[in-house]
Amino acid sequence: MTIEPARLPLMANAIRALSMDAVEAANSGHPGMPMGMADVATALFTGHLKYDPGAPHWADRDRFVLSAGHGSMLIYSLLYLTGYAAPTIEDIRNFRQLGSPCAGHPENFLLDGVECTTGPLGQGLAMAVGMAMAERHLNAVFGDDLVNHRTWVIAGDGCLMEGINHEAIGLAGHLGLGHLNVLWDDNRITIDGATDLSTSEDIKARYAATGWHVTECDGHDFADIERALNEAKADPRPSLVACRTLIGKGAPNKQGTSATHGSPLGGAEVAAAREALGWTAAPFEIPSDILSDWRMAGEPGRRAHGTWAGHLEASPRKSEFERRMAGDLPAGFTLDDHINGLIAAPQKIATRKASEIALAAINPQLPDTIGGSADLTGSNNTLAGGIGTFSKENYAGRYVYYGIREFGMAAAMNGMALHGGVIPYGGTFLVFTDYARGAIRLSALQHCRVIYVMTHDSIGLGEDGPTHQPIEHLASLRAMPNLLVMRPADAVETAECWQIALEQKDRPTVLALTRQNLPQLRLEAGENLSARGGYRLKAAEAARKVVILATGSEVSLAAECAAQLEASGIGADVVSMVCTELFDAQDAAYRAELLPADALIVSVEAASTFGWQRYTGTAGLNIGIDSFGASAPAGDLFAHFGLTAEAIVPQILQKLNS
Amino acid sequence: MTIEPARLPLMANAIRALSMDAVEAANSGHPGMPMGMADVATALFTGHLKYDPGAPHWADRDRFVLSAGHGSMLIYSLLYLTGYAAPTIEDIRNFRQLGSPCAGHPENFLLDGVECTTGPLGQGLAMAVGMAMAERHLNAVFGDDLVNHRTWVIAGDGCLMEGINHEAIGLAGHLGLGHLNVLWDDNRITIDGATDLSTSEDIKARYAATGWHVTECDGHDFADIERALNEAKADPRPSLVACRTLIGKGAPNKQGTSATHGSPLGGAEVAAAREALGWTAAPFEIPSDILSDWRMAGEPGRRAHGTWAGHLEASPRKSEFERRMAGDLPAGFTLDDHINGLIAAPQKIATRKASEIALAAINPQLPDTIGGSADLTGSNNTLAGGIGTFSKENYAGRYVYYGIREFGMAAAMNGMALHGGVIPYGGTFLVFTDYARGAIRLSALQHCRVIYVMTHDSIGLGEDGPTHQPIEHLASLRAMPNLLVMRPADAVETAECWQIALEQKDRPTVLALTRQNLPQLRLEAGENLSARGGYRLKAAEAARKVVILATGSEVSLAAECAAQLEASGIGADVVSMVCTELFDAQDAAYRAELLPADALIVSVEAASTFGWQRYTGTAGLNIGIDSFGASAPAGDLFAHFGLTAEAIVPQILQKLNS
Repeated sequence: MTIEPARLPLMANAIRALSMDAVEAANSGHPGMPMGMADVATALFTGHLKYDPGAPHWADRDRFVLSAGHGSMLIYSLLYLTGYAAPTIEDIRNFRQLGSPCAGHPENFLLDGVECTTGPLGQGLAMAVGMAMAERHLNAVFGDDLVNHRTWVIAGDGCLMEGINHEAIGLAGHLGLGHLNVLWDDNRITIDGATDLSTSEDIKARYAATGWHVTECDGHDFADIERALNEAKADPRPSLVACRTLIGKGAPNKQGTSATHGSPLGGAEVAAAREALGWTAAPFEIPSDILSDWRMAGEPGRRAHGTWAGHLEASPRKSEFERRMAGDLPAGFTLDDHINGLIAAPQKIATRKASEIALAAINPQLPDTIGGSADLTGSNNTLAGGIGTFSKENYAGRYVYYGIREFGMAAAMNGMALHGGVIPYGGTFLVFTDYARGAIRLSALQHCRVIYVMTHDSIGLGEDGPTHQPIEHLASLRAMPNLLVMRPADAVETAECWQIALEQKDRPTVLALTRQNLPQLRLEAGENLSARGGYRLKAAEAARKVVILATGSEVSLAAECAAQLEASGIGADVVSMVCTELFDAQDAAYRAELLPADALIVSVEAASTFGWQRYTGTAGLNIGIDSFGASAPAGDLFAHFGLTAEAIVPQILQKLNS
Repeated sequence: MTIEPARLPLMANAIRALSMDAVEAANSGHPGMPMGMADVATALFTGHLKYDPGAPHWADRDRFVLSAGHGSMLIYSLLYLTGYAAPTIEDIRNFRQLGSPCAGHPENFLLDGVECTTGPLGQGLAMAVGMAMAERHLNAVFGDDLVNHRTWVIAGDGCLMEGINHEAIGLAGHLGLGHLNVLWDDNRITIDGATDLSTSEDIKARYAATGWHVTECDGHDFADIERALNEAKADPRPSLVACRTLIGKGAPNKQGTSATHGSPLGGAEVAAAREALGWTAAPFEIPSDILSDWRMAGEPGRRAHGTWAGHLEASPRKSEFERRMAGDLPAGFTLDDHINGLIAAPQKIATRKASEIALAAINPQLPDTIGGSADLTGSNNTLAGGIGTFSKENYAGRYVYYGIREFGMAAAMNGMALHGGVIPYGGTFLVFTDYARGAIRLSALQHCRVIYVMTHDSIGLGEDGPTHQPIEHLASLRAMPNLLVMRPADAVETAECWQIALEQKDRPTVLALTRQNLPQLRLEAGENLSARGGYRLKAAEAARKVVILATGSEVSLAAECAAQLEASGIGADVVSMVCTELFDAQDAAYRAELLPADALIVSVEAASTFGWQRYTGTAGLNIGIDSFGASAPAGDLFAHFGLTAEAIVPQILQKLNS
């Protein structure tokens, strides 16, 4: 039962009407894009996209990403029209109001069918690359019967102009992701005006140069759209379909101009558009015949879902597939043996190396992981455990050579995590979280289990100098909501942090790891102490007057300071503050016990002191680095910046005596 | 007096020898790139680059940017060999040691002749775009006699693979920057191995698609290099010269492999390389005939400098040109009239609008400014004061439509500031500092006067929702060294902040500005109070028990809270904490007076509370938002997140009574 071609323009007008109405009611929003891409989206959702509105979590559905997220009314219209449980028409009436799932930009945590949060330009398409990677990998692992779907993207000029576009399409082209199809809303308008105000690029030639198939169509000619979509699907490369459209199509006086981009059309223009479109229904009402057509659009997907369910039932790998898509770790997954091995034979190694040996324990027992690095494999120590290379020739591989594409890597990892079935981790230097920060924020906002393996985490990296030495990065990441920032002090804590990170189904983790060797401080087996966020590594021996908080490489320095204080009869606790986010979530009694009111609280971290005062108070002492670093061997730098017991202990004594 | 072509290979070997020796002595560094690009660099510095080693600040010199900054020994070698005052051979012997200007990566603040700090990949080339923009602008303003030079870049595969490369070359191609020439070290090797491990891109086709002239050469054939450089100079478009090279050229066993990229060659391979190159001089020694050749290389530039100096002397615009290149503001530059106008007729406007009217007062009297926006002109309110559009047709224009290229814009602004003669400012939404963060950090590290006009600075932007609402951004920017983060509370403070930002010759400023209207709180003329960083806007009337610190849009909220407290007989100061960096630089007495020990200190900011405890202590109260935002009208959001007097005052009362 196919929808009559003659019905398609009417169905598309339903998107236009809802978009105009919702933006008008909210007196805020972006009508131009949904109206311009209504025809292409209608073609996609009636003839190509594989989806079941009644089962939005169906694992083998096509993924649809509205990378141009400001055009959110497009996807809200489509979800409503095709019959998803939400949004309701009431939700759409409340577009952009508090509590409505129809937020200004689409949020994956508010609506099923919204595969990812979009709005920060370029990232939707880059996440789609990750989804397409996850799809090919799971296809290689579970076969065509269980995993064989496409990733569709609608992107605008903004998405294509952003730098991350280059990284994303470079990766997709190299990996030959033929199930990735990008529909470019080629309307030649940006907020500031015509695109030729700021760009002279031949976008199609650029995509072709990057290994993509490229075609184009008249985005308002259904037959031409159909041809182009079929062409895109037939080509083995990722495809760009340049859809030539008129922004705000249907608004007779404003269409084709930036006036339709980000503002309500206004009552008069809405009336004129209704007239021009022949749309006579009341606002927010869809004529029943048109709604009925739309409600049939998901029918082929519903049938495909049924067939697929039969395959799953028949599959000997059903439970493993379901476990992976649910995001559960395998029963019995544990790092206890690895940790016990460390206790039995303590290691003086860099925590990046400790991470590598943890991964060597993790990867063989956890087939879900897909690792990688942005061209720093040997520095990030991210390749371990005998996982093969993920490539066009071997999608079963689990290690991605992301190239020098930090932002693209992070966004792809978000896409993988959102797709499900895999747990992505990837590495670069901690300082280059700056390059990936836009995507790290979306990991946190979208509740993605992505693990960032960020090595070279302080001046301890030495000679590479200030451009490579993170100073403000720990603070700036800790300020971000819903992100675990973990800085383990030794090999045991590193393994504990990996365990914790893998268990976070709904948030990302940054592991901040050293380049330089650190002594092993944890020498007894027992509970995962890092899970408390902070814990007392060493209790005062003499009467306690000082508590030293430290992280990572500075915990052993704190222990050295404490030893010198004890030698002078001053009792000093040492607290390893592995993860302030987890510590802050402990109960008040636990926190108060670690931060007693009657002791001088000292923080020691080879980084900005910004933020530590919430533990030390203004009467405490904050040892750190509040300027940029320098180029020299690590030991010289620690001395230069006063991060030695010789420099710190006198400050503590002075404070105690003041 | 031209250098004999037969001498060039010997001169190039001097670079190779110094690079090997320095990396070996430091036991750390990157010999592969300097050895691979030694021939191309020799051709450039002996026949094309316009420079005077005795006058590294000569305004009309060509700019040379080593975008592949890890190959720092290339530029240190060149500066030494051509006879710059620094580095000395002793400095090179101390490569990567504390105190040596020969840092791991080139730092503009350590050595003349290093035009910008590089190392974070892609940004050198992107800054070069800004330098080339400044050159064309100043050429348009001052004419060929005073300004007519080129910008040369050496870039590696990493620089070209980074996302920012797309933004930078898109901008350069669109603007037709024909004086920009990029020499790409096409060695087909990255850290992880061969480039085909991670990319399949046709780079030359991509550049051509972006409006660039593209040519190539054998990077070890001097005649072919010469041909390509001449071709690049002759073309009116920006040029990419693909220089096919062998990484580590000269090291017989390791050349052409990633083993030469980031590690010392080792004694045996250095010996083999010396043998292969026929280089018999002792380490760090350059044979006198070769050094003598090198010392002549700058001769044409010295002569050109002399000619140019005559032009400058003869120019009626000499003093204006010198003022601008020195970075001084015009004598008598002032915003006093503008501020007095605000005092006379108070404005209830958004601070983004206040910024626009400040710019309308600034731009006509300060020809140095070059403004712009990353496609948010009407939202950032960055276009004011009758400045024309900067374009290929009109380089005299002073407003840049940067397109949707936040990172590229920020890097270009760094390049402009480093070039000198202009003061760049540019806008986007505060949340998208995440996209530009890598370049903001380099603004701070390089001491660049760049002014970031970051609007939509809180949940006050309303309906666009969490992806567009900054939460952690103020904290994360405040944690960065050498950056002023200013959040003015009204139109007067906004003007004061502009005055301060323009006066910072050696650091960047972020102006965080509202979308929503704010009442004018400052109603009396007088000193620039914002220059104190924080100041008492309103003193307690009843006995002081509370001090409320607030910034930007929350200062008026703080005043409302204070009024309610006063009505209950509780004295409350209100402090506008415009810029914590400037406040922290005040003397202890001033700070203590504003933060008295006997009062409850309360911070109120519609953002993460992270970091405020350094003022409030742990006994104070921090009102803010430590989760992501939401999509709704601004007023609803302030209520939802508890940022109303009704929600805050009871918390203060409770705290006072506890």
